[in-house]
Amino acid sequence: LGSDNVALGVVKNVEYMFGIVGVPVIEVAMAAQASGIKYVGMRNEQAVEACRLYSKFSARPSSLDMISSVVEKAVRTSMYGRPGAVYVDISGDMVNAKVDRSRVREVPCCPPPPVSMADHIAITEALAVLKGAKRPLLIIGKGAAHGRAEGALRELVEGCGLPFLPTPMGKGVLPDSHPNCVAAARSRALLQSDVVVLLGARLNWILHFGLPPRFDPHVKVIQVDLCAEEMGNNMQPAAALLGDVNAIVKQLLEYVHKDGWKYPADTEWWTTLKEKMAANATMTKALALQSTTPMNYYQVFHHISQLLPHDCVIVSEGANTMDIGRTMLNNYLPRHRLDAGTFGTMGVGLGFAIAAATVQRNQNTGQRVVCVEGDSAFGFSGMEVETMCRYKLPVVIIVVNNNGIYSGVDAETWEMMGKMGDLTTVAPPVTLLPEARYDEVMNAFGGRGFLVRTEEELRSALQLSLSDWERPSLLNVLIDPSSDRKQQEFPWLTRSNL
Amino acid sequence: LGSDNVALGVVKNVEYMFGIVGVPVIEVAMAAQASGIKYVGMRNEQAVEACRLYSKFSARPSSLDMISSVVEKAVRTSMYGRPGAVYVDISGDMVNAKVDRSRVREVPCCPPPPVSMADHIAITEALAVLKGAKRPLLIIGKGAAHGRAEGALRELVEGCGLPFLPTPMGKGVLPDSHPNCVAAARSRALLQSDVVVLLGARLNWILHFGLPPRFDPHVKVIQVDLCAEEMGNNMQPAAALLGDVNAIVKQLLEYVHKDGWKYPADTEWWTTLKEKMAANATMTKALALQSTTPMNYYQVFHHISQLLPHDCVIVSEGANTMDIGRTMLNNYLPRHRLDAGTFGTMGVGLGFAIAAATVQRNQNTGQRVVCVEGDSAFGFSGMEVETMCRYKLPVVIIVVNNNGIYSGVDAETWEMMGKMGDLTTVAPPVTLLPEARYDEVMNAFGGRGFLVRTEEELRSALQLSLSDWERPSLLNVLIDPSSDRKQQEFPWLTRSNL
Amino acid sequence: LGSDNVALGVVKNVEYMFGIVGVPVIEVAMAAQASGIKYVGMRNEQAVEACRLYSKFSARPSSLDMISSVVEKAVRTSMYGRPGAVYVDISGDMVNAKVDRSRVREVPCCPPPPVSMADHIAITEALAVLKGAKRPLLIIGKGAAHGRAEGALRELVEGCGLPFLPTPMGKGVLPDSHPNCVAAARSRALLQSDVVVLLGARLNWILHFGLPPRFDPHVKVIQVDLCAEEMGNNMQPAAALLGDVNAIVKQLLEYVHKDGWKYPADTEWWTTLKEKMAANATMTKALALQSTTPMNYYQVFHHISQLLPHDCVIVSEGANTMDIGRTMLNNYLPRHRLDAGTFGTMGVGLGFAIAAATVQRNQNTGQRVVCVEGDSAFGFSGMEVETMCRYKLPVVIIVVNNNGIYSGVDAETWEMMGKMGDLTTVAPPVTLLPEARYDEVMNAFGGRGFLVRTEEELRSALQLSLSDWERPSLLNVLIDPSSDRKQQEFPWLTRSNL
Amino acid sequence: LGSDNVALGVVKNVEYMFGIVGVPVIEVAMAAQASGIKYVGMRNEQAVEACRLYSKFSARPSSLDMISSVVEKAVRTSMYGRPGAVYVDISGDMVNAKVDRSRVREVPCCPPPPVSMADHIAITEALAVLKGAKRPLLIIGKGAAHGRAEGALRELVEGCGLPFLPTPMGKGVLPDSHPNCVAAARSRALLQSDVVVLLGARLNWILHFGLPPRFDPHVKVIQVDLCAEEMGNNMQPAAALLGDVNAIVKQLLEYVHKDGWKYPADTEWWTTLKEKMAANATMTKALALQSTTPMNYYQVFHHISQLLPHDCVIVSEGANTMDIGRTMLNNYLPRHRLDAGTFGTMGVGLGFAIAAATVQRNQNTGQRVVCVEGDSAFGFSGMEVETMCRYKLPVVIIVVNNNGIYSGVDAETWEMMGKMGDLTTVAPPVTLLPEARYDEVMNAFGGRGFLVRTEEELRSALQLSLSDWERPSLLNVLIDPSSDRKQQEFPWLTRSNL
Repeated sequence: LGSDNVALGVVKNVEYMFGIVGVPVIEVAMAAQASGIKYVGMRNEQAVEACRLYSKFSARPSSLDMISSVVEKAVRTSMYGRPGAVYVDISGDMVNAKVDRSRVREVPCCPPPPVSMADHIAITEALAVLKGAKRPLLIIGKGAAHGRAEGALRELVEGCGLPFLPTPMGKGVLPDSHPNCVAAARSRALLQSDVVVLLGARLNWILHFGLPPRFDPHVKVIQVDLCAEEMGNNMQPAAALLGDVNAIVKQLLEYVHKDGWKYPADTEWWTTLKEKMAANATMTKALALQSTTPMNYYQVFHHISQLLPHDCVIVSEGANTMDIGRTMLNNYLPRHRLDAGTFGTMGVGLGFAIAAATVQRNQNTGQRVVCVEGDSAFGFSGMEVETMCRYKLPVVIIVVNNNGIYSGVDAETWEMMGKMGDLTTVAPPVTLLPEARYDEVMNAFGGRGFLVRTEEELRSALQLSLSDWERPSLLNVLIDPSSDRKQQEFPWLTRSNL
Repeated sequence: LGSDNVALGVVKNVEYMFGIVGVPVIEVAMAAQASGIKYVGMRNEQAVEACRLYSKFSARPSSLDMISSVVEKAVRTSMYGRPGAVYVDISGDMVNAKVDRSRVREVPCCPPPPVSMADHIAITEALAVLKGAKRPLLIIGKGAAHGRAEGALRELVEGCGLPFLPTPMGKGVLPDSHPNCVAAARSRALLQSDVVVLLGARLNWILHFGLPPRFDPHVKVIQVDLCAEEMGNNMQPAAALLGDVNAIVKQLLEYVHKDGWKYPADTEWWTTLKEKMAANATMTKALALQSTTPMNYYQVFHHISQLLPHDCVIVSEGANTMDIGRTMLNNYLPRHRLDAGTFGTMGVGLGFAIAAATVQRNQNTGQRVVCVEGDSAFGFSGMEVETMCRYKLPVVIIVVNNNGIYSGVDAETWEMMGKMGDLTTVAPPVTLLPEARYDEVMNAFGGRGFLVRTEEELRSALQLSLSDWERPSLLNVLIDPSSDRKQQEFPWLTRSNL
Repeated sequence: LGSDNVALGVVKNVEYMFGIVGVPVIEVAMAAQASGIKYVGMRNEQAVEACRLYSKFSARPSSLDMISSVVEKAVRTSMYGRPGAVYVDISGDMVNAKVDRSRVREVPCCPPPPVSMADHIAITEALAVLKGAKRPLLIIGKGAAHGRAEGALRELVEGCGLPFLPTPMGKGVLPDSHPNCVAAARSRALLQSDVVVLLGARLNWILHFGLPPRFDPHVKVIQVDLCAEEMGNNMQPAAALLGDVNAIVKQLLEYVHKDGWKYPADTEWWTTLKEKMAANATMTKALALQSTTPMNYYQVFHHISQLLPHDCVIVSEGANTMDIGRTMLNNYLPRHRLDAGTFGTMGVGLGFAIAAATVQRNQNTGQRVVCVEGDSAFGFSGMEVETMCRYKLPVVIIVVNNNGIYSGVDAETWEMMGKMGDLTTVAPPVTLLPEARYDEVMNAFGGRGFLVRTEEELRSALQLSLSDWERPSLLNVLIDPSSDRKQQEFPWLTRSNL
Repeated sequence: LGSDNVALGVVKNVEYMFGIVGVPVIEVAMAAQASGIKYVGMRNEQAVEACRLYSKFSARPSSLDMISSVVEKAVRTSMYGRPGAVYVDISGDMVNAKVDRSRVREVPCCPPPPVSMADHIAITEALAVLKGAKRPLLIIGKGAAHGRAEGALRELVEGCGLPFLPTPMGKGVLPDSHPNCVAAARSRALLQSDVVVLLGARLNWILHFGLPPRFDPHVKVIQVDLCAEEMGNNMQPAAALLGDVNAIVKQLLEYVHKDGWKYPADTEWWTTLKEKMAANATMTKALALQSTTPMNYYQVFHHISQLLPHDCVIVSEGANTMDIGRTMLNNYLPRHRLDAGTFGTMGVGLGFAIAAATVQRNQNTGQRVVCVEGDSAFGFSGMEVETMCRYKLPVVIIVVNNNGIYSGVDAETWEMMGKMGDLTTVAPPVTLLPEARYDEVMNAFGGRGFLVRTEEELRSALQLSLSDWERPSLLNVLIDPSSDRKQQEFPWLTRSNL
């Protein structure tokens, strides 16, 4: 009879509710709609139990009248301190139970998170280290996006003339097109910097834990983070600035405004970085402009990046697709990228896109949601295109299809394999069906599917999709199944280089 | 970078391996193929963590040379005693590690489970109760199927002239078409029986916990089960026969052979049951033969049941679809039904079908796998049709599509709702997109999709599908979205009556 | 305010309740007494959370009226199948809540566990293997005690002339003094046997997993166990007899009665075993009769064994104390030994003794409870002597005190160490305070404490203690702190030899 | 064989290690001593598994060379942000394994926690609320002690003339004897205050969740805490000052220094509080000076408080003992009280005292550790007095003994009950053995035990104990077993009033 638990995905002010429907959930969903909450019925939410295990807070109200307090605490906890998932488990027999309304305490929604600042001594230490830097580098992370530090950061970057690098979720806090963005020389920047300022970014595997051979063994790190427990993770920082990223950047600005400190524009460091960026741009361009058919990843992303509106929300998941897309697709606005990211969990992309599109439509921003997926990643939750069609959410899905995971084979090779024996015995585990028509899956539900083989088809399909505000589209972009392998001659463009 | 754990779904003799691919799994899959194991790459396996929590046994080998022993214990534990899932978690860093082969203990595959029999006193008690019954009823459960008790049970049913009822997973142990099968009078049989013999069946919610108002409050229960802890669950049995179902039925037969006991064929009980069966058959037939378009559930299942080969494997999940299908689709062979069953977990059907079809093909049985799905259930893992197409598994999927969960709306109503406001606000949570073309999802991957609206289309599509041995088919059977509600005039046909 | 959960240790028919008192528990304890249950308030129950994790069954009633069913299921599950701990967690706010009595279903106490027997084929196989044995050995385990197989086993052992060995918890099923008991040649018996019959005994670490070098690599094993999942653990058995140990031994007897099979008394195997037993007895006796002061372990156990009544219940925990005590203290009756055993959990001994003494007193058996503890083990829950004094439970506690864990130092050495520096720096981690007066702890609460240094003091104190039926006694037996190390010249008497 | 895991309780700089000894731990303890760590072997550490569940961080190093990093992270996490327990589980087979030293990364010990400050706007808001208060109240909590805010707080309290109240763990941050301390009018202060400033204190059950009827429903709360997630728990604060308590109090002082704001000394609020304090002092004094034998709680604590040196560390646990002791025993220095506190976990007191005494001895502070225990609480870990004797730790244990939990009976009544029937049936669950000689338990191990019945005996025993620096003492203070009940005429002195 389905689950007897209801996992409530509660959002600030509870404007939206996302769920899958089983017996006891229907009543909850209807009650939610009755009280003005928008309900989006999904086809498959994964791993509810996993939710509970990896949640920042989990609770099970012991009686009906406790639900409001528990939900308030859950919502507040999800937003205060380091943001995170929370889990409230309401037992099935509560769903249809009744409670005397007078016993339920009215719980107002919590105010925005409290803000804290760094200690003055730590600020002074940090500035001393930064000013002494020969090869400084700012790394802008998810925490800076969450802390809405874009204004202060722009002032810091431009006022002090510092190079910066965004993490995948920090992309867009400052535009990727900003002249001080050195993403195109990422490896070089990380390796040679002598002082790194982490702004809401963690030294996790995406940043190679801050360790050699990717970092200078003598690099000094200045950490800016609102989570005390994050300080000192994987290295001992030269300065630890604990507090709200935005507030702390403003503290730093106050000091530098006083003495007008600026990192010179004519250093060897800037020369090195700019040369490397130019070299990498040339090589990427060479790949992007090959104009072969089937296309390679760089061609595909080159054209997409030219056509996407600067204010769109980019959702991304997949292996090569996510990695190469991070370097080739620019973000221009903060909090406009949803990246499967740190954990590399597959199957979340379409759900992210549905949530984003629901919010965009409701807020009438006129911004589009574009979801760039690998073909394997798409398979985890591909049936959610029905949800998009059902609610007429004009998401543009681009499936970069290489017939496999990491790499596939072409249709001819596949046929040949089929003749060699049982495919469960002979087919490489990484292969998927060649030329699978994911575009027709979209057609199946009334959305608009495009099969794309050439650059022209890609441009035309993407333009049509972006102009359609009534329904979702899916571009099934067939690329060379061995695209990945070819790139290995250019090791600076692989995952380790993201 | 995906999960760093590998969950091995290990099958007896390890002929097959099913997995999803992430970085550390590829090597495992390739190693498996190299040692002759067939590898089936799935698109999305759910809730790995959940696996561990609900497993009968879970372990994490502490070193490489322990893996063989741990896997042997896992496989053995899954088969001995009450069968159940097991979980082995191999840490990512073991995948590419090496071990001195001489340190690895060779572990032979375990023999079939040991067999135990009931105590003679308990057998005597049980027979005394059974012989004293005015209105006896055998309930044949999953445990009888697992215990391969079909031969002995047929002898008991036919030799003693007893009425029987299968549980969903017990269907086919004896053919549903057997004259002593009283499934068509299920509610009456349960309610009026004075002695129930549970043969590997549990008194869980599917059997209403053996309680009034569905059972006689004075009913006597004889439990036959291999799990001691199951004895006495939800009621105190008149006799508890602990052991292997097959062995115990043979013990019972030994005794009844001696005195030639037989339940008379001319009792009021048989008369009651037969009358009720006839009446129900008439009403079902009335619904099944309505010949309306759009069709109702009964029409659909009527025609399917006429065309399915008696030796096919039926996989089923969904709400109404699974419930009504259980009563309308006969099973003729034991262990030829895979039912989402006891827990009602959604999303397992296509995975079950893929596993069954892989085994059938390998064993060359000539038997077909038919997967009957509700449209909501199909959505949980619909992308697995790509897997079927990839491996050319000739599964026949029948989606009984009522545009929703329990019930949907028609296209016209949906359009109207869309005009009334944001669909997230006005659409009933149970509705899905009207007339969603699940058949085109199959076409998208090179399988054969059929859109079915009429009885003729249903028959023709099903016949074509069954004759195609090269690839999977999907019948998207559009039925009246309000089909369920109409049936409520016939409460004896609803879920509680399954 | 203490815990808000109540862990109920529910016993069959719920005659006794053991608990520790915090706020919400008082009411439960009083309610229990009011309904005729005896309540024993303990000083410290360990690891309640651990209980839940290692329980066979754990549940939390969702409402008051569910408690009776949940408790019934818990009690039944703890007794049916392999016995085990169960855990019921009742939330604090239920303790003082009220429920309409008519809504509570009366749940009768469950009958004794159902009994199952082995398959005839397996019996035949087992007998063929046994009859072919040159050097057979029966190993009698906890499962035989639990299954009350003593009568049948005596018939098997004596009727067929077979040697047997008890596991620690199997001691007493047949008397340790039985002529066919080969415990005194344990290592030899295990190593040279060609056919081992496991009767409710597991091949765990206590039996060296059945592996070389402790077992013959070609040994054939016949497993008799009621737990299917236990079959084949750590080796593949020559025959697996699944079912109740008592019933299965009777099945075996039925067959051997028919042909009158008997293992000859004049075999080389019996000669070997008897010679080894005699040799070991000589050496043990040599140690036991050394008559030195301070005493060694063997002296102590020698005198204890001479004075203990044959029908006493022996509780034991500790390292050397438990190991050597197992070999030196005979059990003459089944289920009269409680051994910290398989897991070696420390701190359970006094609790076991309190429970046993409460039951003995209530059943008026006239049997004494004797608790043999190492000094370290005693420290885990030594304050429970207050509980014994409070309820006037005439337990005899014998603390075999070597001033440490495994081994300590004498008072003089300790003084010297104290002068060398801070004792936290210089004292070996295994040492405890020399000559700690555990006997005075007993005096502190009104029991009878004895400080024992010589054989005469030991005999006299034990005789006095056994004659006192009004209160508990404690013998603090000071032995040579290096007693253990000396024994290493006799490796056949160490732990690995137990 | 004991546990196969080792739980390392790692302290800053790892000067001390506390453990219980089982097989694999001995080697660890010896290795610890070899590298200069002091090792204290305890008799019984509770609920290791519970540790893991309630830990802020738990990890299991996957290989030997990871241990140093994992321990560094554990130690750092335990100190940074809100302090908390951490759990590191090292598998048994690592204990004796070897690793190439060059592969182990040297991990320096982490610096003190980073400090953050509140946002200026929040500071301004908080001051506006505080200055508008008619009846302000500061509540000083554990967070203020941990944050070492005593200097700044004294300046705030004295400079602004504000009344304050410590929580149990906040006692001593400012001396309990401070004229602005209104602890003796606790209930009144909480109930009538219109603005409460929480300084590192949580609104948990000890503070009645900040709710009526214990608080004014319109009270405004200013929260000062370093944990963002704590903000808004149980009420919405008028101002939330996120950051280090010490730093924030300094921020507040900066502002009030500017305008010289001061809360007037001649307000009705001060008059009310002072009158109530005087009245309560009179009543407490009346009880304390009754000079009856047996004594009551107030007599006992009156004399203890007169004799304890002001710099001693007070450890406390128990029900009435801890509650009444909190009000009667003053703390004069910060971080000199260890209170079973928030969770009311029993059995931790003696362990706390051992740890404190080890540190005091090592740091040569000349400060004494005094452990005030209820008789029930003492029983949870009373065997640890052997540990104190073994390491010659001069802890003074005062057991306030009322023969029971909450209340007991006298020896005469107990005898009478014993004649009425089995004590397990008739004895109240809360009673313990009358006049149990806990003092003799101390004597048993060579410490100094005192049986105390009168005020004179109490004073003399305590003076002797405090003058003995060589060994621990235990005062077994027999009080009127019904002492608690008598006090109920004075409801303002009960638990709810703490």
